[in-house]
Amino acid sequence: MSYLQLITSPTLLLDEKICRANIKKMADKAARHHMKLVPHFKTAQSKEIGKWAKDYGITEVTVSSIKMAEYLSGEGWKNIHIAFPFNPLETLKLDKIAENQSISVQIINAKTAQILAEQLHHPVGFFIEIDAGYGRTGVEVTDFGLIEEILLIAKKSDQLNFKGFYLHPGHSYYMPDIPAIYEESRNALSMLKTKYSTEYPDLVTRIGDTPGCAVMEDFGDIDEMGPGNFVFYDLMQSNLGGCDKEDIAVCLAVPVVDIKKDRKEILVHGGGVHLAKDVLIDQDGNKNFGEVVYLNEDGWTIPEDRSYLKSISQEHGIIKASDELLSKVKVGDLLGILPVHSCMTADAMGEYLTLEGKTVDHAEGVHE
Amino acid sequence: MSYLQLITSPTLLLDEKICRANIKKMADKAARHHMKLVPHFKTAQSKEIGKWAKDYGITEVTVSSIKMAEYLSGEGWKNIHIAFPFNPLETLKLDKIAENQSISVQIINAKTAQILAEQLHHPVGFFIEIDAGYGRTGVEVTDFGLIEEILLIAKKSDQLNFKGFYLHPGHSYYMPDIPAIYEESRNALSMLKTKYSTEYPDLVTRIGDTPGCAVMEDFGDIDEMGPGNFVFYDLMQSNLGGCDKEDIAVCLAVPVVDIKKDRKEILVHGGGVHLAKDVLIDQDGNKNFGEVVYLNEDGWTIPEDRSYLKSISQEHGIIKASDELLSKVKVGDLLGILPVHSCMTADAMGEYLTLEGKTVDHAEGVHE
Repeated sequence: MSYLQLITSPTLLLDEKICRANIKKMADKAARHHMKLVPHFKTAQSKEIGKWAKDYGITEVTVSSIKMAEYLSGEGWKNIHIAFPFNPLETLKLDKIAENQSISVQIINAKTAQILAEQLHHPVGFFIEIDAGYGRTGVEVTDFGLIEEILLIAKKSDQLNFKGFYLHPGHSYYMPDIPAIYEESRNALSMLKTKYSTEYPDLVTRIGDTPGCAVMEDFGDIDEMGPGNFVFYDLMQSNLGGCDKEDIAVCLAVPVVDIKKDRKEILVHGGGVHLAKDVLIDQDGNKNFGEVVYLNEDGWTIPEDRSYLKSISQEHGIIKASDELLSKVKVGDLLGILPVHSCMTADAMGEYLTLEGKTVDHAEGVHE
Repeated sequence: MSYLQLITSPTLLLDEKICRANIKKMADKAARHHMKLVPHFKTAQSKEIGKWAKDYGITEVTVSSIKMAEYLSGEGWKNIHIAFPFNPLETLKLDKIAENQSISVQIINAKTAQILAEQLHHPVGFFIEIDAGYGRTGVEVTDFGLIEEILLIAKKSDQLNFKGFYLHPGHSYYMPDIPAIYEESRNALSMLKTKYSTEYPDLVTRIGDTPGCAVMEDFGDIDEMGPGNFVFYDLMQSNLGGCDKEDIAVCLAVPVVDIKKDRKEILVHGGGVHLAKDVLIDQDGNKNFGEVVYLNEDGWTIPEDRSYLKSISQEHGIIKASDELLSKVKVGDLLGILPVHSCMTADAMGEYLTLEGKTVDHAEGVHE
């Protein structure tokens, strides 16, 4: 039986072959640059996809919340890293995970370091997150006073172990100038490594964004990479040039509920609660909430003439359709939608269906 | 113990008093206009909040998917209406619900009517959804050919029962000119009622948006109202003038993880996977993903000087903070965020915590 026969409502499809190829390609790239790949599983949030990643030599994983760390602990990861400035209200939960699972966190202020130093009963690693210009989070790269204050607090603790410096150059999502951002990031991390490696000879540096990890070839002396989105990719990444649309490993299957031929519009069941509301805006100001692919028994094909979601509300999606699509679509059909931001779509859907008809877990869909 | 002591991670708070007052006010308004209030539970998606609604004389409920209908069936509702153009792939599921629960759907094309007429074994009501200018979904108000084609198909079926005309003037969310939209909507529904009531003397007309139901006082001869968002309201509604900020019944409690005094920014754990990504944009082009309230043991207070989320990513939120907030906030504190779009925030969170520390169900958080 085809996976298509299992679908009656919006369903997130996952092409295992594409997903594995994406993981393999990034693992090969990391190996070529003598870097350790520690994928960010905020995108996949899945034990099963974690097993696939292990097939390509991946032994450690990154997450963005204690909830995800809880979900993935006990799955045999050599370490789980929470790449989010640690929330001191979750110290007890962290300590509990650390009892049975090697785990690390990010620290960007002295108060959080102090709380962890005082309250942990089990060993926890930490990275200091560095802000080299993105401005979302992190210690400013030249704020040696704060870096050393954090290191000093940790030194007095038996449980808090400094691992190195983490940098997420998230502005690579907004700026076409990834090489310049990477030069700045490489220099920042290299300077910190040089400055602190005498005292901490094992310290490592890690960089964390998908666009940069996908397109750059010069990582300088950075030791580890932690991209997330690359396991699935999406339209945002293909727009940035980090992947081709053919590399996108997930698409939302949506039922066609009405067709307005005169307006060239198709109404589907598929809206903000399924795709999330990330949007691409083209030069003419047109919004694009996802692009149509044609589903078949083996997966999907990308049409030459583009059809796309021009608007979405909570459950509704309106497709601006090409003539080709209009000529063959019928009420009751299923179409595929390539998502703008696959991390958010996967989180909204909380489950995947493979092309073999197998359900794959996602942390959000499991209530333990 | 205060509800605050239960919170270590992003948590959606629900003030039961405000929520009940919102329901009561709309129920009183419907009664004053001799209309039936059939609230749209795409917002609350909750069995428990359904019980509260029953305290104010509400006996029927609206939903936007078969999944929500399944969730709320068997809860004693006199009827559950799915206010979404019916997806014919879900005919079997609908038929199964209809075995034990009075249910109705929306039909906007002949093909779907035909499939339902042929395949249903249990009685199902239906509204014809009318498009009077919004353009998202529905039969154009003057397309009598299509209206009569659908009615004729239903007439030949033993199970498909025509209930009336439904109109969602969703453009009231985008245009300040609600009175003009309502005049058009009233006229459209009144014309259809007059035209078809000889043949269908029991037919009713229903209108479905919160902004209009909140601010209008002239509903003409419309029989029923089906607003949804009013149970919680949100910043989008208060911006439109449909409510005051004091009427907003939900807020997201978020932990403070870092403070940058020089930039007047506060980093919180609370992003797109919690709030969803709906955004308000002010006259100067500044984005607002939610506004800060101060939490206390009795609930929250709205500060005079506004602080707001200027940007969010998957898990991060960055608050542009007032001087007052900066002067008292500490890492490890909890702040409240009034959401821009409460329906989407509730769907993302999948659960509520009341100020009494009680968990309230949401369909998305329950896996049966």
